[in-house]
Amino acid sequence: SSPFDAERPLALPPNTSLERFKDFMRQIGDIVGSENATVISSDAELQHESYMDPSKAYDMYHITTKEYLVSSAVVAPRNVPEVQAIVRLCNDFEIPLWPFSIGRNVGYGGAAPRVTGSVGLDMGRNMKKILEVNTEGAYAFVEPGVTFIDLHDYLVEHNLREKLWIDVPDLGGGSVIGNTVERGVGYTPYGDHWMMHCGMEVVLPDGSLWRSGMGGLPNPNADPNAPPHEQKPNDTWGLFNYGFGPYNDGIFTQSSLGIVVKMGIWLMVNPGGYQSYLITFPKDDNLHAALEIIRPLRVGMVLQNVPTMRHILLDAAVMGDRKSYTNSDKPLTDDELDAIATKLNLGRWNFYGAVYGPKPIRDVILQVIKGAFLQVPGAKYFEPEDMPDNLVLQTRHNTLQGIPSTTELKWVDWLPNGAHLFFSPIAKVSGDDGVAQYEVTRTRCEEAGFDFIGTFVVGMREMHHIVCIVFNRKDPSSRKRAHWLIRTLIDDAAERGWGEYRTHLSVMDQIAGTYSFNDHAQMRLNEKIKEALDPKGIISPGKNGIWPKGYKKEDWAIPNE
Amino acid sequence: SSPFDAERPLALPPNTSLERFKDFMRQIGDIVGSENATVISSDAELQHESYMDPSKAYDMYHITTKEYLVSSAVVAPRNVPEVQAIVRLCNDFEIPLWPFSIGRNVGYGGAAPRVTGSVGLDMGRNMKKILEVNTEGAYAFVEPGVTFIDLHDYLVEHNLREKLWIDVPDLGGGSVIGNTVERGVGYTPYGDHWMMHCGMEVVLPDGSLWRSGMGGLPNPNADPNAPPHEQKPNDTWGLFNYGFGPYNDGIFTQSSLGIVVKMGIWLMVNPGGYQSYLITFPKDDNLHAALEIIRPLRVGMVLQNVPTMRHILLDAAVMGDRKSYTNSDKPLTDDELDAIATKLNLGRWNFYGAVYGPKPIRDVILQVIKGAFLQVPGAKYFEPEDMPDNLVLQTRHNTLQGIPSTTELKWVDWLPNGAHLFFSPIAKVSGDDGVAQYEVTRTRCEEAGFDFIGTFVVGMREMHHIVCIVFNRKDPSSRKRAHWLIRTLIDDAAERGWGEYRTHLSVMDQIAGTYSFNDHAQMRLNEKIKEALDPKGIISPGKNGIWPKGYKKEDWAIPNE
Ligand SMILES: Cc1cc2nc3c(=O)[nH]c(=O)nc-3n(C[C@H](O)[C@H](O)[C@H](O)COP(=O)(O)OP(=O)(O)OC[C@H]3O[C@@H](n4cnc5c(N)ncnc54)[C@H](O)[C@@H]3O)c2cc1C
Ligand SMILES: Cc1cc2nc3c(=O)[nH]c(=O)nc-3n(C[C@H](O)[C@H](O)[C@H](O)COP(=O)(O)OP(=O)(O)OC[C@H]3O[C@@H](n4cnc5c(N)ncnc54)[C@H](O)[C@@H]3O)c2cc1C
Repeated sequence: SSPFDAERPLALPPNTSLERFKDFMRQIGDIVGSENATVISSDAELQHESYMDPSKAYDMYHITTKEYLVSSAVVAPRNVPEVQAIVRLCNDFEIPLWPFSIGRNVGYGGAAPRVTGSVGLDMGRNMKKILEVNTEGAYAFVEPGVTFIDLHDYLVEHNLREKLWIDVPDLGGGSVIGNTVERGVGYTPYGDHWMMHCGMEVVLPDGSLWRSGMGGLPNPNADPNAPPHEQKPNDTWGLFNYGFGPYNDGIFTQSSLGIVVKMGIWLMVNPGGYQSYLITFPKDDNLHAALEIIRPLRVGMVLQNVPTMRHILLDAAVMGDRKSYTNSDKPLTDDELDAIATKLNLGRWNFYGAVYGPKPIRDVILQVIKGAFLQVPGAKYFEPEDMPDNLVLQTRHNTLQGIPSTTELKWVDWLPNGAHLFFSPIAKVSGDDGVAQYEVTRTRCEEAGFDFIGTFVVGMREMHHIVCIVFNRKDPSSRKRAHWLIRTLIDDAAERGWGEYRTHLSVMDQIAGTYSFNDHAQMRLNEKIKEALDPKGIISPGKNGIWPKGYKKEDWAIPNE
Repeated sequence: SSPFDAERPLALPPNTSLERFKDFMRQIGDIVGSENATVISSDAELQHESYMDPSKAYDMYHITTKEYLVSSAVVAPRNVPEVQAIVRLCNDFEIPLWPFSIGRNVGYGGAAPRVTGSVGLDMGRNMKKILEVNTEGAYAFVEPGVTFIDLHDYLVEHNLREKLWIDVPDLGGGSVIGNTVERGVGYTPYGDHWMMHCGMEVVLPDGSLWRSGMGGLPNPNADPNAPPHEQKPNDTWGLFNYGFGPYNDGIFTQSSLGIVVKMGIWLMVNPGGYQSYLITFPKDDNLHAALEIIRPLRVGMVLQNVPTMRHILLDAAVMGDRKSYTNSDKPLTDDELDAIATKLNLGRWNFYGAVYGPKPIRDVILQVIKGAFLQVPGAKYFEPEDMPDNLVLQTRHNTLQGIPSTTELKWVDWLPNGAHLFFSPIAKVSGDDGVAQYEVTRTRCEEAGFDFIGTFVVGMREMHHIVCIVFNRKDPSSRKRAHWLIRTLIDDAAERGWGEYRTHLSVMDQIAGTYSFNDHAQMRLNEKIKEALDPKGIISPGKNGIWPKGYKKEDWAIPNE
């Protein structure tokens, strides 16, 4: 008898009887060991609340019914052959798998699957080795369970931070692989994680193993009798991305075409000097002028990294919850926002940047930066020493040099029982566009009864405008309004030609639908590739709106709570 | 009666009777107009000799029989719907198409197809508009026929070079699209062309039209009744690459999955200052030390661009032909090479770089660069003013700031009736690896009776080692030796774990075969995607070793001359 015999999951996989599911789980237990397989069988398992201890089975910050985006079981393979065996078993049983690495994808659905009753594949629990940190080549190879904090700690412990920096998102607890395959961003010059990846090892939907780029070329020192995943990789795998022939890596991002088991990521060489800074803009409508200043500086590489232009409330929320600022239950007014800014000695908009390199270089660049921004009346320049008590500035001083933290988590607690949802449209770096996005999103947030909290993350030639919809996860009305808000914003945005770069499970179909050029040519291509590589639709069905042949999208419409 | 009625092509497409071919060409004529369709029917059409006037139908620098890599006809569509109609017609007739943009892919096969009798699709002849140069966003959109020279001239004519620079390969006559989809390289900080592309419009093998990334999101100002290819694209198409969902752009590089009809490319903002330089290294064995110096400087971004370490003979060959240096018909000895270096006031190795930015920044960086390289005994630093007669330095002074030229073409004439073939392995940036590649390739070149001519092109974390095999195109023995040489080098390299980034038609199968990890997992994935998108194998069969289902690779083995 197996430990799973007694257990009935809260949700079975589609078209799967309990008997068949038990049979499946027995075989899963044989593959990974029963200690690495958990059937999600009771509401007690759906009680996670925080990024620090995230659920591996459902969306802690659900905006639809709690039981909808939930796994039937969570399975944690110990090595690559186990991943392969699981994938093959899922093909046999036609049971969908939802791989994740850490499950801290909060605001986008966490570890939850899109299809109720999918089997969650917890890649990070057992597979978390830092496989290599190559100092000369300035890259690392990691397994899915390696977090930004892990990788940073490794550098510190091995006295390597004098040589190499990593790039980190606002929070360091996520997976380097998970974040990168979702095309997440950080804030050093290496902030575009996908651009900086180099080399992938992927289990394909048929269970076979593929190495990208130069990884296709055997290392002459590899043991040809070793199983493929253990064969010493080519020396240039982490050095050159493209290899020979079609460059296929990108199809494994924001996709459902494979399970990434190893990845290389370029590390930044310590630039030999660093200075972070904050520039505050006193007025709400300074945003326009500031963005017009940012564009030429960023595209001209005077701004060397991924700086952010943060709305006052994002900073305020890191420093205190809503109650500490107001008793009002209406969205904060401009006067109230001004008062908060004054109280915190911040601007209505606050720009966090840094310069990199030896002092003479930094001085030249900083002079240009100050000369440009300080033309905005009332704008002020600060360095971290000027504001020892400014928690945000102190944190960003670390973030912008790749030192991870979890401080920013605090803004999630803006409301009691704080939960959040990200609305993340791409914006032109222009005053008109930024202000228009701010106005539309703020107006809608307020219409939904929420404060606007947001930040413009400035990439090479565009901004990821991250609107942080904070809601009360225990208040059904709050959840409902958050759901209404994001659905409404997606349509508002599409009408104006704005599209999102990434999204929550609940609105993947809607957003995919907005990328509709030429009768949904993008989706038709995606579906063709999906069908070719994963004919049974085993991996992450519904992810980013791509439904395998066997699924009717309508059947999987997200219920309103 | 049609103008094609009388014509019999030198080579018919596979499995196609003359009657059927004529029927096909009649319909092609209806699509593009007879003036845009040429049947390749006589040897008179196979007499091209030079990059400046390249053949659109065969490989001018063939190393197999001249008639093998040859098109049955060359067809030049005038617009996107014509491309779509041609692709559909080819599906009906099961006749393979070989798209190219300009056909200056010399050294890699030029415009010639891999499968004898394919129809060459000359994308550049009529489709050569610069669709947009966006000064604020620093990008351009171009059609296939736009060359680097065209794009540069546009900037100059519109007084935009004060604001924007392009990045150019050594020769400026190629297509921005053709070079970028082959993942070609240039030498400014934007030297990795593929990394800097943003936005593609592609005709897929079924004739449908796809726009990548943000191009999937309709522009609200687009006319929905216009044909898709004419619809005003989304404002962020050229600003943000990844869009939403799988990032598929890479599958259209070095591949046979589509025909690129528009592409966006990021332009570099004029950095506000520039200084090019040459550092000469007197001894052959200085290469080791120099590469060890380059690695940390490049990965640390002290070297801001793609510099090159050139072998003396590459420079010598630009300045004169072989006869001007020697009467010997044996490969030049070390003593002779030393003498040439001395005569030209160059080193055995010559490093061409540049620094970018305002003077104070350049000064700091240059100080570090000089301090590092000039530790090599005998190394010398020069700026262009120091060597007004050094043609290579004067040319690279332009190339490294994105000013195109065709000067480097001269090295092709090293031998009488000069032709060339590139062997392009990826190398670690390390003394050991670089020297090992130099030794292996030089030894084999000399074994084949050729001089070693080559350069190390230093990318972000690796080098494209470009070995320029110059041969006499009218001497069968010379062609044969070149063919032997590249085949032998590919195996030599693979044995040592070195793989090529791009290659000539004649050895695509061989190189694809070296990327054999895990029972050719890369090829199996490529074939699956090919089969899904192009079930009839219409587009570029055999390209980079990928053969559609209908083809037996063995039937298409490249004949020895
Ligand atoms: C306060 C706050 C600030 C944040 N700041 C940022 C930020 O600055 N930048 C940013 O990018 N995000 C940010 N986030 C969002 C999120 O926390 C991070 O992106 C986080 O790294 C994602 O979670 P994860 O790494 O655990 O990924 P996971 O949850 O493990 O994975 C995310 C998804 O990626 C795919 N995936 C993961 N692993 C694999 C694999 N091995 N194979 C195939 N597919 C896989 C799956 O679809 C999975 O659902 C923030 C969140 C909060 C709450
Ligand atoms: C002296 C010399 C120096 C050189 N230096 C460099 C250098 O510095 N860097 C470098 O990269 N190369 C270099 N080259 C090689 C070559 O000249 C360039 O790469 C050139 O840009 C390629 O030719 P093209 O642009 O005309 O491409 P094309 O011949 O038009 O296309 C090349 C291939 O790309 C694909 N392709 C082209 N257009 C399309 C399309 N629209 N849709 C789908 N597929 C398409 C096809 O497979 C085609 O065969 C050099 C060559 C010489 C002789």
